[in-house]
Amino acid sequence: MEQNIIEKLINELTKLPGIGRKTAQRLAFFILTMSEEDAKGISKAISEVKEKARFCNECFNITENEVCDICSNTVRDRSKLCVVEEPCNILVIERSKCFNGLYHVLLGALSPIDGMTPEKLKIKELIRRVEKNSLQEIIIATNPNTKGEMTAQYIRDILKPYNIKVTRIAYGLPIGGDIEFADEVTLGKAIEGRREI
Amino acid sequence: MEQNIIEKLINELTKLPGIGRKTAQRLAFFILTMSEEDAKGISKAISEVKEKARFCNECFNITENEVCDICSNTVRDRSKLCVVEEPCNILVIERSKCFNGLYHVLLGALSPIDGMTPEKLKIKELIRRVEKNSLQEIIIATNPNTKGEMTAQYIRDILKPYNIKVTRIAYGLPIGGDIEFADEVTLGKAIEGRREI
Repeated sequence: MEQNIIEKLINELTKLPGIGRKTAQRLAFFILTMSEEDAKGISKAISEVKEKARFCNECFNITENEVCDICSNTVRDRSKLCVVEEPCNILVIERSKCFNGLYHVLLGALSPIDGMTPEKLKIKELIRRVEKNSLQEIIIATNPNTKGEMTAQYIRDILKPYNIKVTRIAYGLPIGGDIEFADEVTLGKAIEGRREI
Repeated sequence: MEQNIIEKLINELTKLPGIGRKTAQRLAFFILTMSEEDAKGISKAISEVKEKARFCNECFNITENEVCDICSNTVRDRSKLCVVEEPCNILVIERSKCFNGLYHVLLGALSPIDGMTPEKLKIKELIRRVEKNSLQEIIIATNPNTKGEMTAQYIRDILKPYNIKVTRIAYGLPIGGDIEFADEVTLGKAIEGRREI
């Protein structure tokens, strides 16, 4: 049987992560019932992102300009730099509204076994920013896992000569979580990091 | 902060069913890393479906032509008609490779409380097909729930005068399932529908 437009859409959608055949089918038939405008909106947003997305010259965030919205925002605190692994991490931190400085995206984490050596990450670029700007604090917000920890320690060590405050985001219990279900490592870190109230 | 292309894509993706903010975010950043070709493929498939999709003149399946691939396929058995609620049901039945006849999509199921009366469904069109063609069997494959059952019985009754064999797909245990987890209604139907082996 020749492949019709619906089958084609289903096949295309299964290329996305976590979208199996059944989900793709459900999405495809939903798209059929959507307004023309909404469906075209999705279609356009996908092609636009591919056509226009590039890395910010300063921080390696995703942007459609030379420099991203955050780096070019004059209201932000230019003395603080938050180091993250991936551009998507910026979105989450921005949503927390707890940080008003600038970012630096490493575009990965150290993992020598996968060939992710320091040269593959945007660490040289980070050092260049530290040298060029008068920064007061580098907040390392890499993931709280082996690779992220290794990366955090590597950056802390490499920044030692610059006499700059380097901090690591806190470990602890997730808000809304339940102590009963916390793993012992997290719980240990939460106790270690306790603060007076 | 102005809405950038990534935020826009994330917002567009959350319009899809079952895609929350986090999934949309994951999809958006995955799309960023996809090959230009793959991403454009998805984008194009979505807009194509909206531009070209229409209902088959014969069976109300989704097609881009006047008559769908199945109705126009001369190899298929034109004496059997399988009645389904939605076009997406055809895909699943086709994948089972157990039916080689034609279909008739009702575009819904009876549900007087929601205003889904027989006139809203493609039942007149079904009767016209029964009158015009020399059919041997109508297989009713509406959903095994209240609305689907009501619809199946309505169609069986309305087709009585035509002296045509009307069958209903079997109820029973799903393959790969476990009797332990079967609900008692399904189990009852499975016992009722037992066959000699």
